[in-house]
Parts: sequence; C-alpha cells; structure tokens
Amino acid sequence: MQGYADRARSAGRTIAFVPTMGFLHEGHLSLFRIGRQRGDLLAASIFVNPAQFGPTEDFDEYPRSLERDLSLLEKEGVDVAFTPTEKELYPEGYETYVHLKQLPEHLCGLSRPVFFSGVATVVAKLFHIVKPHVAIFGEKDFQQLLVIRRMVADLNMDIEIVGGPLIRESDGLAMSSRNSYLSSEQRPAALSLYQALCTAKDRVETGETDVKKIIQEAKSRIEAFPETDIDYMAVCDLNTLEDMTHIDGPALMALAVKVGQTRLIDNMMLKPPDK
Amino acid sequence: MQGYADRARSAGRTIAFVPTMGFLHEGHLSLFRIGRQRGDLLAASIFVNPAQFGPTEDFDEYPRSLERDLSLLEKEGVDVAFTPTEKELYPEGYETYVHLKQLPEHLCGLSRPVFFSGVATVVAKLFHIVKPHVAIFGEKDFQQLLVIRRMVADLNMDIEIVGGPLIRESDGLAMSSRNSYLSSEQRPAALSLYQALCTAKDRVETGETDVKKIIQEAKSRIEAFPETDIDYMAVCDLNTLEDMTHIDGPALMALAVKVGQTRLIDNMMLKPPDK
Repeated sequence: MQGYADRARSAGRTIAFVPTMGFLHEGHLSLFRIGRQRGDLLAASIFVNPAQFGPTEDFDEYPRSLERDLSLLEKEGVDVAFTPTEKELYPEGYETYVHLKQLPEHLCGLSRPVFFSGVATVVAKLFHIVKPHVAIFGEKDFQQLLVIRRMVADLNMDIEIVGGPLIRESDGLAMSSRNSYLSSEQRPAALSLYQALCTAKDRVETGETDVKKIIQEAKSRIEAFPETDIDYMAVCDLNTLEDMTHIDGPALMALAVKVGQTRLIDNMMLKPPDK
Repeated sequence: MQGYADRARSAGRTIAFVPTMGFLHEGHLSLFRIGRQRGDLLAASIFVNPAQFGPTEDFDEYPRSLERDLSLLEKEGVDVAFTPTEKELYPEGYETYVHLKQLPEHLCGLSRPVFFSGVATVVAKLFHIVKPHVAIFGEKDFQQLLVIRRMVADLNMDIEIVGGPLIRESDGLAMSSRNSYLSSEQRPAALSLYQALCTAKDRVETGETDVKKIIQEAKSRIEAFPETDIDYMAVCDLNTLEDMTHIDGPALMALAVKVGQTRLIDNMMLKPPDK
C-alpha cells in the first residue's frame, strides 16, 4: 500500500481515502462518492479495529462481510482496497497509542474510555500507510470526526479532513452497520432516537432556548419504549462538545441509546430562528 | 517546511532529517554528517520541546544559542533549518500526545514520567512537517532511539531511523548540551560516569557475568565523588531494556547521575568475550 501511494504521488496524482470497518451501507457509499470527487485516486480500508472496542463490547460479534464489501468497492469505483489483518496492524509487542486529552471527555468517550484512543491510533496508522491527501469521515460519528480533525491539526499531518453528511434509512433511522443487530420488534424503539432529535430541532426552530426542557422532552420520547436505555443525550458546542445550557446559536444534539443489546448513536444540528 | 518537502519529494529527492534542541556540539555535527550521506537534502530542526520537560526540570534554563547554531548548520551543509516557536507547535487548545506503554517503563522514563511521551509527540509532529525519508538520532539517548524506532514501526511511519554513535570529549565525558552547566570543579565527578562504564566493560570482557557485582563496582567509582547522586544504573537488554541479572551476550549498560544540579546520562555496550 505504501509503495502504491508513493508511485501515485510521484506521478502527481492525489489520493482520497475513506477508512471503514466494513459491512458497508449507503452511508459508506456516500463517503466514497465524496472521495471520488476529491482525489485522482480513491482508496478505502476495511479493518475492524480491536483497539477501539472495550473488553465488554461487541468486537467479536461486529458484523463482517469482506466479499460483499469488496464487490461494492469495485462497483463504486474505489481504486484500491486496503484490508490488513489484526496481526499486521498490531503485531506482538505493539505499544504505541495516540491520546487526546479533552475531546474524548464528552459524549461517547465517557462510556467508551478506550474508544477514541483506539480510533486516533488506527487512523494515524492508516494515514501513514495510505498516505492520502484528503480523507473523508461521516458526520454520524460526529465526535470521531472532531477527534480526527484535532489529531491531524495537533500532529501537523498534511491531510485535509472532509465530513460527509449523515445518511438515514427511508424511515429516518441513521445508517449503521450495527442496525443489523436490530430485530423488527426493536425497530420502533430504534426510530425513537430520530424522532426525539426531530422534536428537539422543531422546538429550537420555533424559539425554545432552554436546553433542559429540550432534553427532557426528547428523553421522554425515547423512554416511552421500555427496551431503550439512554447512555447520554447532550446539546453541545459544535467544536468543543462542551455542554450548553442555553441555545444562542447553532448547536449539536447528540445521543447514544441502547435498544436491547444494541448501542445506537445519532445526532442533529439545532439552529435557532434567524441564526 | 511542508511545501519545501513536497517540492523536494516531487523532484525525486530524498530528505534526511536530524531533529535537535539546539546548543549544538560535536555530537550533533556527527549526526549531520551521517545525514548528509543518507539523503539528497539534509534538514535539521532546532526546538527546545516543552512537552518533554517535567514541571521541576530545566526547560527555562536549557541552554540556547540560535544564531551560533544556524551558522554551524550552514557550515555543515545543512540545506534547511526548521526553527518553530513554541506557539506554532503547541497552539492554544493543543491536546494530542503519543504514548508508549512499555519502553518508557525503564531507565530515564522512571524518573522523567512525561519525557518519552513528549519526545514521541514532538518527533511525530516534526516527521509530519519535515516529511523525511530517513532520520538520524544519537545513541547517547539510547532509550530515546528505541522509543522512536518503536513509534515509527508501531504507527507505520514510512521513515528509516538511523542511530549515530555517542561522541565523547577528549577526556571521555559524553557530549551533551547540559555539560555547559558543569563547573570545572564538577568535571572529575562528571567523568566518573565514563570511568564507571569503562570499568564495567573491562570486567565483562575479562569474563565477569554477574550483573550485581558489575553494578556494585561501577557505583562505587561514582559514589567516590560526594557531589554525585545516582538516579539509576542498569545493565539491560538492547531491545526491550529489561534488566539483566546475568550477562550471556551483548548488553547495554546505562546510567543517569546528578552532578550537583546537572543530570547527566551515559551508556556503553558490554560484550562478553567470544560473543
């Protein structure tokens, strides 16, 4: 992969890169389409990264479909697929990790303490291997996108980071490889995340500024389904992820909810009128 | 600097890089000479890195001589000097650090807990800015050299790391910018580090294999000077830095000693006969 990247760069071609954990869905495909516009060559990686899963999380169960994924990559015009093994990226004696001190102390980082260090580490590794000029990350994992942007800026990586919009199913459920865990009975409960966000968005657009009230109403929409368990729900600053109490400009509403055993995340921009 | 590196790489030229904290001495110059052989272009950086100094250490007092350093770089045929400010490398809100889990748990890492994270972080940053094909580090900071090699391997950085031999003054004192702190009265005590290492080397070459005995004798040579305070003295594995108790092959002897307020480090390879 490094040789491929070197030859491409020597020939004056730019490389766009979409890292993924595979089990591709429309959300990933939308990132490939952005990538194709951004580079002469489009690279994608498929690697379920053990470093970003906690010991009680779903690394072993995480859905995988390499054959199907590779044919999708081909269909989407991806030029090169990088599909390393666990041993190749984390050989015996591996001991180097990239840590961020502040951004992970919010939202998902609180209940998944190793997650963002695992993400930053594997993305740093993949960047050194794929050598992209530009890399594309989905805004569904909004905190992840901020962490990568911050790492790239802090470590002076010469790579442009582009966010791709969150893609939803026709019923509104945010696309995720983990949606495959959901039973049809769980679907209405899973949809309540989207509905709660829509309600909050409506409230803010019609003038509500009190974050406590907004969250209370959104929570009650989710808690109406007994199989849900809210991990967090926050209205926060778009750049620092610091909690807001009062809405006086664009804000991010983000939440994580367990539906049965399946942890789902979703987010939406809240914009007060005339802002 | 990134633009310079991109242009050089596009033109097919290789970049060798020597990062320094300035206050250059013959040890640094020997690294530049190695670098000149290794790349079409030779880059050097001068940056006293605050992230690798603990709160009670000598960051403020660390000797600086930018004008003199730059003229030395020119004389040595260094093609480009990168001399960032603290604010440029660590702007407000900076929060990303590279950590190693095992190698820092030995030797200098034990008494300087932030040191190797600071070193790994700034070297990762400098590598992303200078974009070298090869980088040269002195073997005087042997543990640092291992940490950099490990980081480069673990994070898949496509950079060759070359070690340069430790350079000594004519009396045997290992070259260090911190030698400028020593008074002439302290010089004999400072020299005892070298003499202790030489004694140990002799013992091992004539068949001694008991590390306890070797260290005991070496320590007594240093402790003969009341102004010394031994931080550590170890005989350890060349790759993992794990302590050895019995010498059955090449080993590293390393030590750190305070002479008055000045912390000095030194090391030497110990080789048993017929190995």
